[in-house]
Order: sequence, then C-alpha cells, then structure tokens
Amino acid sequence: MAKHNAFYAQSGGVTAVINASACGVIEACRRHSDSIGKVYAGHNGIIGALTEDLIDVSQESDESIAALRHTPGGAFGSCRYKLKDIESHRVQYERLIEVFKAHDIRYFFYNGGGDSADTCLKVSQLSEKMGYPLTAIHVPKTVDNDLPITDNSPGFGSVAKYIATSTLEASLDIASMCATSTKVFVLEVMGRHAGWIAAAGGLAGQGEGEPPHLVIFPEVAFDRRKVMERVEYAVKNYGYCVIVVSEGARYEDGTFLADSGNTDAFGHRQLGGVAPTLAGMVKQDLGYKYHWAVADYLQRAARHLASRTDVEQAYAVGERAVELAVAGENSRMPAIKRVSDNPYRWEIESAPLAEVANREKFMPPDYISEDGFSITDACRAYLSPLIQGEDFPPFENGLPKVAHLKLARVEKRLPEFTI
Amino acid sequence: MAKHNAFYAQSGGVTAVINASACGVIEACRRHSDSIGKVYAGHNGIIGALTEDLIDVSQESDESIAALRHTPGGAFGSCRYKLKDIESHRVQYERLIEVFKAHDIRYFFYNGGGDSADTCLKVSQLSEKMGYPLTAIHVPKTVDNDLPITDNSPGFGSVAKYIATSTLEASLDIASMCATSTKVFVLEVMGRHAGWIAAAGGLAGQGEGEPPHLVIFPEVAFDRRKVMERVEYAVKNYGYCVIVVSEGARYEDGTFLADSGNTDAFGHRQLGGVAPTLAGMVKQDLGYKYHWAVADYLQRAARHLASRTDVEQAYAVGERAVELAVAGENSRMPAIKRVSDNPYRWEIESAPLAEVANREKFMPPDYISEDGFSITDACRAYLSPLIQGEDFPPFENGLPKVAHLKLARVEKRLPEFTI
Repeated sequence: MAKHNAFYAQSGGVTAVINASACGVIEACRRHSDSIGKVYAGHNGIIGALTEDLIDVSQESDESIAALRHTPGGAFGSCRYKLKDIESHRVQYERLIEVFKAHDIRYFFYNGGGDSADTCLKVSQLSEKMGYPLTAIHVPKTVDNDLPITDNSPGFGSVAKYIATSTLEASLDIASMCATSTKVFVLEVMGRHAGWIAAAGGLAGQGEGEPPHLVIFPEVAFDRRKVMERVEYAVKNYGYCVIVVSEGARYEDGTFLADSGNTDAFGHRQLGGVAPTLAGMVKQDLGYKYHWAVADYLQRAARHLASRTDVEQAYAVGERAVELAVAGENSRMPAIKRVSDNPYRWEIESAPLAEVANREKFMPPDYISEDGFSITDACRAYLSPLIQGEDFPPFENGLPKVAHLKLARVEKRLPEFTI
Repeated sequence: MAKHNAFYAQSGGVTAVINASACGVIEACRRHSDSIGKVYAGHNGIIGALTEDLIDVSQESDESIAALRHTPGGAFGSCRYKLKDIESHRVQYERLIEVFKAHDIRYFFYNGGGDSADTCLKVSQLSEKMGYPLTAIHVPKTVDNDLPITDNSPGFGSVAKYIATSTLEASLDIASMCATSTKVFVLEVMGRHAGWIAAAGGLAGQGEGEPPHLVIFPEVAFDRRKVMERVEYAVKNYGYCVIVVSEGARYEDGTFLADSGNTDAFGHRQLGGVAPTLAGMVKQDLGYKYHWAVADYLQRAARHLASRTDVEQAYAVGERAVELAVAGENSRMPAIKRVSDNPYRWEIESAPLAEVANREKFMPPDYISEDGFSITDACRAYLSPLIQGEDFPPFENGLPKVAHLKLARVEKRLPEFTI
C-alpha cells in the first residue's frame, strides 16, 4: 500500500481537550505508518493550509505528542476563519487541493465545530470533482455542544465539569458568609446560542434550596420581575441566592442582557457582561449585596479539571478519524453514541458529514423546568455522565505541565497565496 | 487535669482551606481529650458566641471532621463583623465572657485575619482583667497574605496556585487563537490593598515574552499611556497580550480603576470591575479585540486546585493552636516560619498576638520589577514554594465531595442578646 501524508488542523474556539484529539489523530497515524507517511499540521488551522504554513509533526517526539493529551489550548494554532461559499471563492478551495498535492497529502483531518464540518465536506466534494483522491474526516469539537448526531461534543464535558464544580465551590463560600455579607452571587458562563453550559451549573445541587437557585438560559426569555421574585424567595428562604447565567441570556425581543444599552461616562457602550448587568438589577430592585464572576476563557481552558470521560472521548474521536480514513471511509465524522445512561456506556460510530454540516443541536425543551429556572431530571441524566471521572495533568513546580512542541515548518513549494 | 470546653470560630472572608484549619483544631482537641472537653463552634463566627448560637462539634463523626480538610468555604459559617473598641462596646466583650462561662469554655480559638487577631487579643486581655481563666489563640487565615510575622497566610497559597494555573491555561488558549481572534486577555484577581494575588499570576511564565505580559499591582500607580505602550509592544512582538490585574489597581491619586466614574444609562455608577474597564481602554486606545474574566469567589473557593503546601500549613496552624493552648500559652498565634527556600522547609513558631494585631504586611518593593509590570526573582523565590504540591479532593459523581455536618445546636443557657 502506497504511503501518503496527512493534514491535521484545529478550527474555531479551542477547548481543554482539543489537543487530546490531536494526540489521538497523531498517535493513530503513527500506528498506521504503513499507509500514512508524515502528519503535517496547519499553523493556525486552515489558514496554515491556504498559506502553505505547515508544521512537520514527524519532528515531535512521542513524549511531546503524548503530552498533548493534557495540554489545553490549540497546540498548532487555531483560527476563526470560515471558508466562504464554494461558488464565489472557489480559488480558496482549489488552493487547498494544490497545497495538498504539493505535499502529497491525501488525508485531511479537520478538528472543529459546525462550520469546519461544512468546510470539510466542501473540500471533500471539490477534491472529488477535481479528481484528487482526498479522504476528508471531520473530528468533532466544541464547548457549545451544538453538533448534531454525536450525543455530545468533545470539549463540552470538561467545561461542564468546571462550571458545575465552580458553582458548587463558590456556593459554599457564599453560604458561609451570607448572614453578614454577600447575599447574591452571579456566575456568567459561555453559550451565546444555547444553554448547555449554564445547564451544567445546575449539576452543582439537587435538593430543595440547593444552589444554584436560578439558572438563566438563552432559551427562556428574560423576565426581570420573575427573576427578581425568585432571587428574593431564595434569599428569604435559604439566606442567599446563587445564579448561573448564560452569556446569551436575552429578553423576549431577542436583545441580549449584556447589550442593554448601558453606556459609560464617555457615551461608549458599556462593556460589562451579563453578570454585572444582572447583579446591578439585583442591587437596584432588591438592594442585596452581590458579587459576580465571569469565567470567560478560564472555563474552556481549565484542563486541570477536565472530565476524564471528555478526555477519553476527545482522544477516541481523533483516533477513530484515522481508522475511518485508513479503512477508506470519506466525508465522515466519528460521532459519540450513548449506549446507556446508567451505567454510562458509549461507543464511536461513523456519521456522514452531509448530515452534520450546517445543522445545530439545541437543548431539548424538556431539559428546562416548567418555570424556566432549573434543569430537569432528563437533563441531569444526560449531563451527569459527561462530567464523570478526573484526569488531572501532571504538575511540575506547582503548575500543570504542558507540551512544548518544536513546531518545525515544512519547506514551501508553492508561490505565496494571500487570503 | 480538669477538662474544659473549647470555642472555635471562623472570621472574615473564607478560603479554600480555612476548613482544613478547623479540621486541625478539632482533631487536635479530640486528641487532647484529657484537657479539652467539647468543642463548640460559633455559628457565623463571633456572632455565634455573642448570640449563644453554638454548634456542638462533638456530634460530628470523625469522618465528617476529616472531610473538612477538603471542603471549601466556612463549614460553621463565618461573618464580616468586627467587634468595636473595648471602651465604648465593653458590653459585647463581657457578653463573650458570660457565654464562655455559661458553657465552661476556657479555650478560645479564633480563625481569621488581622481584625480577628485584634479581637482575640482584646478578649484575652479582658478575660484576664475579669479574672476569667481563658486561653485565647488566634489561627491565621487570609487570602490577602497580609498578616505580619507569619511568613505567609494559610489560604493564600491556594489562591496563588489557582491564579497562576488559570493564567497559564488561559494564555495557551489566547496564544492559539490570536492570529485571527482575541489579542488581549485581562484577568482580574482579588487583592484590594496588596498585589500578592496578582503577583502569583506572574508565576505562570518566566522567559522573555511568556505570559502574563503585564501584571498590574495596586502598589504601582496606574499610568494608562505606559500600560497601553506595553500592551501594544506585547501584541506586536508576541502576537497577543495577557494581563493579570488586581482589583485594587489605582491611579496616582488613589482612585480605583473600577471606580472611574462610569455610569450606566440610568446614571448609576457602573458596576463593572477593573477587567472590563481596562479591556475598554485597550479597545479605545489600541482597537484590539479583547476578552476579560473576573475570577471573584471562584479563586478563593477553588479547593479542587488547592496547594498541598497550603493545606498542610492550614491544618498545622489549627493543630498547633490547640497544642499551644494545652501547653498553657495564651494570646499567641501559630506562625509559619520559612526555614529555607530551596528545598522549601517550614516550621510553626509561636508569635505573641500583641505583635500581630493591627499590623499589615505589604509586598516588599523589591518584589516588583523596575518598570512596575512584573515580579522579580526575589518575589518568585518567595511565592513559588507556596503553590507546590496538589491535594485534590475526593470526587463523587463527577463533583468534589464535601463535608456534610449536622450542625446540632447547643442548648442556650442565657437570656437573648441583641448585637
């Protein structure tokens, strides 16, 4: 069997475990050295392919590659760059094929979310039209958990574990001080379009009165009066109130809470997020002392608290991507299939990319309680397995040890290309 | 030897390890059952003593007490309540003695920061005047690391480890996306009066260009032009800029950045913290895409990432407090003494409370670099040992396991007292 090279790239917002997928892809390629030659990684994702800025992964030691499994961020660089539609920007797609040809790349592994699944599909289709034998496999990743078909998206489980743990820990802090200090705590979490991450905050407590007392989802129109009633109820009955709010929280008319028209002294749009906005409402309407936190990148970079389930799945989809490619499958995505909830069992299946691209998965309505402020048992049954298990990284000198790659570049063979 | 009861209370802002000190106190009391009877904990700190709201710790199992070692927050409730001066509020101090008398309490263990050291000293002095034999020992705690004499304050090491780790992890995220996305990331950390926690962020990197590229201390007057020059330099040379900023960052005239007079659309003082304010300046002056995070309570509650050194020291000061009391020492505080930096060795010494109360420890000027934006080698040598070692809590169902106490109350024997 003739050997050809592989291309791997990371796309979109990175996660705590996208490098575990990279590790899965690269280690599997090394195990299939009969059919796969070198792995070239795109520097800064697909931009690396377009500009022929390729990293020669063969120069990285086995130890360095193994260390990717516990290194957050995107080790080869990722990008927010979406290839436009193929009709008007055909030249970009053709450039990709040219670069692949120039470096004998016949395997294309693209690690990203919905947009990159779409790109992966288009590249696959075009290469077929152009008669270039390319095997394109999409490796799923997104903290937003919005990919279809796959039961969950690698990257989400670790954010979920971080947010659930942080909510639990901070709640113990507030609970112990509420008699004379902070009564309301607001934690802002990611999820502009869907409340998956906010829902994970709901895992921190279960029984009556256990925090968080409110989860505010983008799926439920924000009703200030109702929210404040609930906050007051919690403070009066439990002594304090913990709120997990999605950055995507919005009013009935679709306006984001964070964009509520507040301006600073210079007339500039206020920069604060949802948490300070909501905390301000609490102060104004109820007068309670508050604190707020915005986890931002901390939540999606927190590899130190990754879910073991998530790490294993992230690795598995990377590994399986290579196995599918070697087995001759094309235009596919390894997807996680849930076999059972309790005990949680999962396996990887192969999904056609045409069914993945350009479709979003939203929270099922029955995952949110009737009153709109908490998660249901169905949601809990879905989420809980995803945060199971720990996979602490090795530490050195008090800090997590991370991979340090050489990132040696492959010599260019083509003229420059401006994107 | 006649047996008498002990009183233990938590005071001020809680930490990830204040319960480890509680564990040390209680376990040591149980080991000294020849001289110490029951341990009564104040519900919500000293307020519990004033209102005779006492928790009977003898009803908690050894397992529950052991679990305190890995439970964040203040398990018996803490408070922000400072006893006023003894001249004008003598009645409060006398009430404390009355409650102690009524419950045969002759050991007073007070777990807190500078204010509580002062209270502990006053209670000790008054009891002597009143002829009531009370042994008062202060157990040090504060994330602010501002207690004198002790080399460091239990609680600080864990926040330091959390902030250093979070800075490292988030920096990897920014670094991998900066070519096409966020160029500047701002992490706001605690420390209204001193830059100890901000300094800990500096541990994330060491070499030229390693993040954080700027640490903004309360000790250094904020100069917008200089800061922006440095941000621009980092973005141009390293592709991105990570800033760790103390909530106490202030201008030359003492105005806090967070109180810069910004108001929202209703004319209310803007609620945003330092991070959004600084991020706004970056956008306005340099136009870079930014993200910001405010760790707030997450940082001081993050027991899941506690420093093992910190946990051991927190336990040790609690344990030693009891040993000092049993040995007949009074008006003392167990203090951490650094024996050597490398290898790090420490021991506990006994410090007179009179030297602890009402004194603050600030960052030595030689811990901040000449340009005011980073930590020096001396600072690194001081901080580094404090974040060494991990002490992950047990996890259950994907979340940290925490202590669940009965918190049974002791029957009241005195008339009500209004505070």
